[in-house]
Amino acid sequence: MYINNRVIPVTDRQVMLMSNNPVNVAFLPAGKKINIPWGTTLIKAANEAGVEVDAVCGGKGTCGKCRAKVIEGAISEATRSEADRLSLEELKNGYVLLCQRRILGDVVLETLPSLARQESNGSTKGKIIDAALEVAPLISKTYHELSRPTIKDQVADLERILNRLPRETRAGVRLLSQVPDVLREAGYCVTSVVQEGELIALEKGNTVSEMYGIAVDVGTTSVAGYLVDLARGKVTASVSAANRQRAHGADVVSRITYIMEDDKGLAELQKLIAQTIDEIVGKLLQQSGVPAEHIYVLTLIGNTVMSHLLLGVTPVGVASAPFVPAFSGSVRGAVADLGIKSLPAYTRFVLLPNVAGYVGSDTIGVILATKIYNLPGTWLAIDIGTNGEVVLASGNRLLTCSTAAGPAFEGACISQGMRAEPGAISQVRMENDVEITVIGDAEPVGICGSGLIDAVSEMIRLGIVKSSGRIKSPEDLPPGFPAALIRRIKQNGNGNKFILAEGEREVSITQSDINELQLGKGAVRAGIEILLTELDLKPSDLDGILLAGAFGSNLRPASLKGIGMLPDVPLSSIKPVGNAAGTGAILALLSKRQMEVALSLPRRIEHVELSLHHGFQRAFARGLSFEVKK
Amino acid sequence: MYINNRVIPVTDRQVMLMSNNPVNVAFLPAGKKINIPWGTTLIKAANEAGVEVDAVCGGKGTCGKCRAKVIEGAISEATRSEADRLSLEELKNGYVLLCQRRILGDVVLETLPSLARQESNGSTKGKIIDAALEVAPLISKTYHELSRPTIKDQVADLERILNRLPRETRAGVRLLSQVPDVLREAGYCVTSVVQEGELIALEKGNTVSEMYGIAVDVGTTSVAGYLVDLARGKVTASVSAANRQRAHGADVVSRITYIMEDDKGLAELQKLIAQTIDEIVGKLLQQSGVPAEHIYVLTLIGNTVMSHLLLGVTPVGVASAPFVPAFSGSVRGAVADLGIKSLPAYTRFVLLPNVAGYVGSDTIGVILATKIYNLPGTWLAIDIGTNGEVVLASGNRLLTCSTAAGPAFEGACISQGMRAEPGAISQVRMENDVEITVIGDAEPVGICGSGLIDAVSEMIRLGIVKSSGRIKSPEDLPPGFPAALIRRIKQNGNGNKFILAEGEREVSITQSDINELQLGKGAVRAGIEILLTELDLKPSDLDGILLAGAFGSNLRPASLKGIGMLPDVPLSSIKPVGNAAGTGAILALLSKRQMEVALSLPRRIEHVELSLHHGFQRAFARGLSFEVKK
Repeated sequence: MYINNRVIPVTDRQVMLMSNNPVNVAFLPAGKKINIPWGTTLIKAANEAGVEVDAVCGGKGTCGKCRAKVIEGAISEATRSEADRLSLEELKNGYVLLCQRRILGDVVLETLPSLARQESNGSTKGKIIDAALEVAPLISKTYHELSRPTIKDQVADLERILNRLPRETRAGVRLLSQVPDVLREAGYCVTSVVQEGELIALEKGNTVSEMYGIAVDVGTTSVAGYLVDLARGKVTASVSAANRQRAHGADVVSRITYIMEDDKGLAELQKLIAQTIDEIVGKLLQQSGVPAEHIYVLTLIGNTVMSHLLLGVTPVGVASAPFVPAFSGSVRGAVADLGIKSLPAYTRFVLLPNVAGYVGSDTIGVILATKIYNLPGTWLAIDIGTNGEVVLASGNRLLTCSTAAGPAFEGACISQGMRAEPGAISQVRMENDVEITVIGDAEPVGICGSGLIDAVSEMIRLGIVKSSGRIKSPEDLPPGFPAALIRRIKQNGNGNKFILAEGEREVSITQSDINELQLGKGAVRAGIEILLTELDLKPSDLDGILLAGAFGSNLRPASLKGIGMLPDVPLSSIKPVGNAAGTGAILALLSKRQMEVALSLPRRIEHVELSLHHGFQRAFARGLSFEVKK
Repeated sequence: MYINNRVIPVTDRQVMLMSNNPVNVAFLPAGKKINIPWGTTLIKAANEAGVEVDAVCGGKGTCGKCRAKVIEGAISEATRSEADRLSLEELKNGYVLLCQRRILGDVVLETLPSLARQESNGSTKGKIIDAALEVAPLISKTYHELSRPTIKDQVADLERILNRLPRETRAGVRLLSQVPDVLREAGYCVTSVVQEGELIALEKGNTVSEMYGIAVDVGTTSVAGYLVDLARGKVTASVSAANRQRAHGADVVSRITYIMEDDKGLAELQKLIAQTIDEIVGKLLQQSGVPAEHIYVLTLIGNTVMSHLLLGVTPVGVASAPFVPAFSGSVRGAVADLGIKSLPAYTRFVLLPNVAGYVGSDTIGVILATKIYNLPGTWLAIDIGTNGEVVLASGNRLLTCSTAAGPAFEGACISQGMRAEPGAISQVRMENDVEITVIGDAEPVGICGSGLIDAVSEMIRLGIVKSSGRIKSPEDLPPGFPAALIRRIKQNGNGNKFILAEGEREVSITQSDINELQLGKGAVRAGIEILLTELDLKPSDLDGILLAGAFGSNLRPASLKGIGMLPDVPLSSIKPVGNAAGTGAILALLSKRQMEVALSLPRRIEHVELSLHHGFQRAFARGLSFEVKK
């Protein structure tokens, strides 16, 4: 590899010999710098410098997402993977895959913004979640005007407060040391903060109206946080950020693989998720102006693997038979136990319980928020993310399963996939030609999940894609087929591609993109069919399908039906419900009653382990097919 | 001051200018070394090096206990305090008071062993504390042979154990991460450790018989620790060590003064007591061979100020009206919260509740161990330490008070006072001459508390000391008074001294020694009288007096009566009961029932604040007098 005219080969032995010599790496445009041992990979340097990098494949060099430009400095030679993923032009101009190169001297890099963290303004902002909800949060604040001690009233400082609180209320050692000063400085007018029988904080004056919690939905790809005003029962701010664990793989399986291959992997992933939560907390506080000391409790939800990683507990048991997680119940503690640094030591967390297998507390959140556990009739709820969790409620029964939806729905593992950001094709219509909608009214540079599903659905409808998933060649199309569409089909390797946009940058859908999507939708569809079969039900028995997930809600129901992910039900009965998992976490934060329901749900749920289900292989094979409807 | 022919004056400004230049200080015979900023005081260097030094006066240069010899090196000039405390000969030979000198270059010092830490073999060792005691400790261990998970039994690792434990048992985040490995490595045969509804540890195999706790009696002067076998209900080892806080004053008042004068004082004292406990734990483990991971719980007792310092909570409220402590109830937590490093993170502590004022959980321990709360009749218990706590039990009433016994009973603040170590005069009889008993059959070098009280009691009995406390001059003694005694009386400053030993080193009792003892015994006697008066009782109503404290038990009841500390009761009704406070801590460790009694005692106790009691001044004045009985 040539950088600044230096060709430097590198061997593992050299790395060993030189690794005591630290080198400097600078990242543009972030402006972050780090001093790191010679021979470290660029991707590790980026992680340690806190520069966000997508690494969908977990650093194997296969996804090509961790592209960056070397401005100056010495790094190891280009690899075979780079030759496959980067053009000769790009290689000449200093483009590299961060996971493929080692640092051999001081380096300056420019990382690309395309997959940088996204933020949403959150549709829940300012909204009162549920008018009927009895706001009774997990913490309580009470204002006290205490009598001052006298020689006739020598009650100790702490007991002076505890005597005003429910009997058996305890206080921890850390708080104790602050009590004498707080009481005296506040003239004995103080506000107590009690959570589950423990006095966790004592504040000067009357602060009962300043009481906040944060609900955090820890997704495999992105993490959403909601700042909740517990005194007024409403969401004050919401943000999301990329899960920093993405540097070690796009899906839960690649993260488990990372843990199994690297002794420090578990600790590293735990640290990354704590940092992500710190980032979210920081943004929520900045947006709202609420000080960190008024955040008393977090509710946390996530799939089973995310729950394990958050607590620093190995999730490897979940990955192979007999599929046993390390824990499944709700876990409570202090946020400091999780390495979260942006909140006071007294802030507590409650991780909601998992269900079984990969079905975690995020599904508990969906069930809680949709009230599907209580609805009359027969309902399906689908939470589409990197995993796709399916819930079927009928009568008093509640079934769940987890499907390997894969990252295609989110635009990952798709050749030109990207998030729903400016430049992404988000909607596609086809009649005589293609009509696209691009986010931010920009030049199209890629395609996000909704655009992909729209496009494939239209291609199926028009017969451009066969039921097997194959993109037809121009000669296979019937006479009279619109020429504007035909000319968009080009050969591409062993198959064809379909060009959606021909501007400065061509955006197309390849055969392998369609196959990726096929695998994902096939898995979800198989899960749905199996749950229905378990209860002897048919799609026509369904009263409705609830589409959950901030992401799933952006997919058009007609297109989801079009690609055959959803069974054939009337379009009117398919209802997007937003990030129901996050809403569930908010409900559990706001109401003890809702928390109790959440804690009781796992006992009611019957979980179906698809990989062990005798009917799964057939259902999956059936689900792969794109039935062409006419 | 001349050291190695260098005379070096030093000013605060110089200290400021030079303090960035570190110097080396070595301590003999301990062989400890430290690198410390130029200008630091020698006593601070000793503390930081972990060399134990007595500093009864808190570094004011008035007690003369922190004497050491400079072998070589440069230090600041001798002070006025040293001129008062050291002879010219000593000064010439390099003797210094550590608190008076600053370090001006590399220094080698020899510290004196006389007041080095003592260790006791503990009379409780191997003894079953109370045959009637139901052993039901605060923790429980249970062995489980769990079924291995299968695809038909996918119960999570943690729940696999929790399902075998009482409902509602919780587990903390820290334990959780270990559960999967422990289960698999142990072939699903594990021992659970539960404390108060929390699973605190999980061990491989069957370890139910390995279950230990430590009871710690945190005294102002020394700290005692008892390793208790909770499976077998007996004490396995016991040790004591000097409370390292002594470097900042001998009594609670001088330590509070230190905190008020130095912003970092509270944190420093907290650290020193944690280090003392670490030292005790280390010795207990070494003596017994028990590994640290089998210590699950500590019970802690101490006076109110020690309790506060242990938790890092300011005790200044206790020191002045309205005498309000920061807390008085029992406090629980993890030993790690106290900065104790020698035990696992899961080890818990329970600090027993305080009573009121200076009367702390050590008195709760005395009440628990003596069962005075339950005895028929009328009983007095006195715990003689640096403070003297008095308990009066009569019928259903339980009264306490705290008296400023002062350090005289322990041999401190006495010109030649020392601990009960080799060379200490521990017993004194007088008839025609003086008969002394010296600990370790050595040459006498000083006097310990019991020797002092014996001697003064005898001097009162023979009329050498007047009821006012004054040592008579030879000419005031009646004709025929034994000449061997008369010649021991020598003039000493404004008063007289009485020579007990005339060997290589003269050991004598000075007038000020007697006055120190007088203040202490007067305070205790006043406390006794006031409690009796509160219940309209006379000394003759007492069924017995229980003398508690490892120290108090070594004082001869006849001599305590002789100096008038105890009221005039038959000698046979005065019973030494050993370190009852420590025994109480052991009982609370061994038995939940005893712990409940301990927790309930404060509500039953009526505390009398002597300093506010209208009758105290008169009672104290009366108590000062040595009534000469004939």
